[in-house]
Amino acid sequence: MRSDSRLLIWFKMTSKELYLEIVKKGSCLCVGLDTDPHLIPEEMHREDDPVFAFNRAIIDATHKLAVAYKPNLAFYESQGVKGWRSLEKTVDYIRSTDPSLFIIADAKRGDIGNTARQYALTYFVSFDFDAITLAPYMGRDAVDTFLSFPGKWVVLLGLTSNPGARDFQLQLMDSGRFLYEEVIEISKSWGSVDNLMYVVGATKSSHLQKIRQIIPDNFLLVPGVGAQGGSLADVMKYGKTAGGGLLINSSRGIIYASSGSDFAEKAADAASAVRDEMAMYL
Amino acid sequence: MRSDSRLLIWFKMTSKELYLEIVKKGSCLCVGLDTDPHLIPEEMHREDDPVFAFNRAIIDATHKLAVAYKPNLAFYESQGVKGWRSLEKTVDYIRSTDPSLFIIADAKRGDIGNTARQYALTYFVSFDFDAITLAPYMGRDAVDTFLSFPGKWVVLLGLTSNPGARDFQLQLMDSGRFLYEEVIEISKSWGSVDNLMYVVGATKSSHLQKIRQIIPDNFLLVPGVGAQGGSLADVMKYGKTAGGGLLINSSRGIIYASSGSDFAEKAADAASAVRDEMAMYL
Repeated sequence: MRSDSRLLIWFKMTSKELYLEIVKKGSCLCVGLDTDPHLIPEEMHREDDPVFAFNRAIIDATHKLAVAYKPNLAFYESQGVKGWRSLEKTVDYIRSTDPSLFIIADAKRGDIGNTARQYALTYFVSFDFDAITLAPYMGRDAVDTFLSFPGKWVVLLGLTSNPGARDFQLQLMDSGRFLYEEVIEISKSWGSVDNLMYVVGATKSSHLQKIRQIIPDNFLLVPGVGAQGGSLADVMKYGKTAGGGLLINSSRGIIYASSGSDFAEKAADAASAVRDEMAMYL
Repeated sequence: MRSDSRLLIWFKMTSKELYLEIVKKGSCLCVGLDTDPHLIPEEMHREDDPVFAFNRAIIDATHKLAVAYKPNLAFYESQGVKGWRSLEKTVDYIRSTDPSLFIIADAKRGDIGNTARQYALTYFVSFDFDAITLAPYMGRDAVDTFLSFPGKWVVLLGLTSNPGARDFQLQLMDSGRFLYEEVIEISKSWGSVDNLMYVVGATKSSHLQKIRQIIPDNFLLVPGVGAQGGSLADVMKYGKTAGGGLLINSSRGIIYASSGSDFAEKAADAASAVRDEMAMYL
């Protein structure tokens, strides 16, 4: 956890800086740290903090191939106090490995006023996350508080890659647009390209062109390449623009590439393969 | 935290059982435990766990006047490991005070598959919450996992009481309905009156009649009476039906009724006043 307020200034990252990291590494890979104690190799359980030990090995193996990490908070919360400690150590370890790595709290929170402020203080100040994922359903006052933290980012759910996206996100509005288009259209003015990005599921790459008409310059965080079946080529083709970047997330495809003692090596291989494919389009 | 699996069966609560508690107590009050260490009386800070000590005093003072408690998780998360412990003790204390008190995790989560399962295990099994608040944006597969836990409830955001409700919830759909109506209409078949209730902001009591046409029998959790300005009389008049009940939440109006050493006494007075008004309609 952050103990030095100067770091707050230090670790600000603009859209351009993030884009330069992507160009430098030839990679827009975000590694999802959905670390489940039941899925990590047996030998990790001999460590004091098996989840952190696993994450550390993954970070060591992949940090030159990735520009971002995204711990999924559910996996840490479910371990109670222990999980909270693993998360603290993981965020600190990413930051100390390379300060320019972008760290996203996959929280999918969405609440207002004082509650939003509590969440923002938790993830932006106590922890050193650069960004948090939020749900848009409660509207602007559930997002504004987070955007008011200088240098910190909101990643708003736009179009998700799960079947349930059809229930509401892909319903037509009176305006003739889908709900997810309305969400992006209305919310894009709440922040700037330097503090607002959107989750857009890769399995809906046909929608990427529409989204790029609405927000040509905002970063998109794209889950669902790999395990969830999206095409990396399509995402790169329709999602990348001159002014706006992409972060493409892979979780299980990398961290669970092997369940044996070679998990870190195999994670590096998997990340490397994705990076090589990305590099062709960057 | 729960250590005995038999409790899982014991603490199931049906819609009818919850309604009987309401009738018995003449109250549908839910006390929101948005406990902020900066807002609790100075003397509490002499305790080992000030947040828990405050909550315990509030619970002692109000448990005969309320049927439910709703800890707002943001306030506990923001205190890190310490907050997690305060939350554990608070939930256990409510349960041991009166097993028929209904305990809602105000989490406003919404995620899918394995992540949803992690959250459900955390709040329904590790903790002994009866219910969790969820956001509907990601659709059915973000809700189903929670509904699959026998005896546990989902409280889905319908129409919230904040200004941001206008951004999306009160936008018209192609169907001619507002988004919030579509959300309730579509989601009502995902669960039953015994495991699915909806958040409906009391400041929108004119919408309550519409909602009761769609879901005459589901419980509604109504925030926004008191501090947020809703009328209790309107909510009781339009929200209560023969088959369906109400839980009406008050947080700050009760727990911060006094900032002095008489906070528990004043909380009891405030809860008592609300209960007396409710009793007239029950």
